[in-house]
Amino acid sequence: MLAIIAKITVKAGEESSFELVAAELAAKVNANEPGCKLYICCKAAAPQTYFFIERYDDEAAIVAHRASTHFKELGKKMGAFMAAPPEIERLNEI
Amino acid sequence: MLAIIAKITVKAGEESSFELVAAELAAKVNANEPGCKLYICCKAAAPQTYFFIERYDDEAAIVAHRASTHFKELGKKMGAFMAAPPEIERLNEI
Repeated sequence: MLAIIAKITVKAGEESSFELVAAELAAKVNANEPGCKLYICCKAAAPQTYFFIERYDDEAAIVAHRASTHFKELGKKMGAFMAAPPEIERLNEI
Repeated sequence: MLAIIAKITVKAGEESSFELVAAELAAKVNANEPGCKLYICCKAAAPQTYFFIERYDDEAAIVAHRASTHFKELGKKMGAFMAAPPEIERLNEI
């Protein structure tokens, strides 16, 4: 199994807008990507800070996720609320 | 749902020893903690770097995890292989 952690810092005042789109994206991923075993967005203790936690069967499932219409469209929407590019960790489950 | 991400830096040369204990801990958590919905240890791209990704029903499930014999015993074993204290993010799923 492969996992991804993406840390996102949102612009001040844009938290609610970001959360709405993130929740829509999570719902679409979970409904449409059989190779994705977990896709959640979480709020951290620090202000304006979120983490996506993602788990995939294999590299092909990650490629399919990134190529999906919902990821491209909603990812672009979320990007407008971000204060900086996401910090992404690509992980291999032991 | 609540989530925890714990970033761990392992001492050089102790990676295999750490991985063995981490895998044993993950197996015991998944077999014995009904309130824990995910407990995996993942290797990052950076050397000596690992992430535990954990997901719980509620705060009581986290308390039960920390109080368990397997966490106390294997956590102590893992601690001997770490180069620094874990960096822990406590998260609320949105």
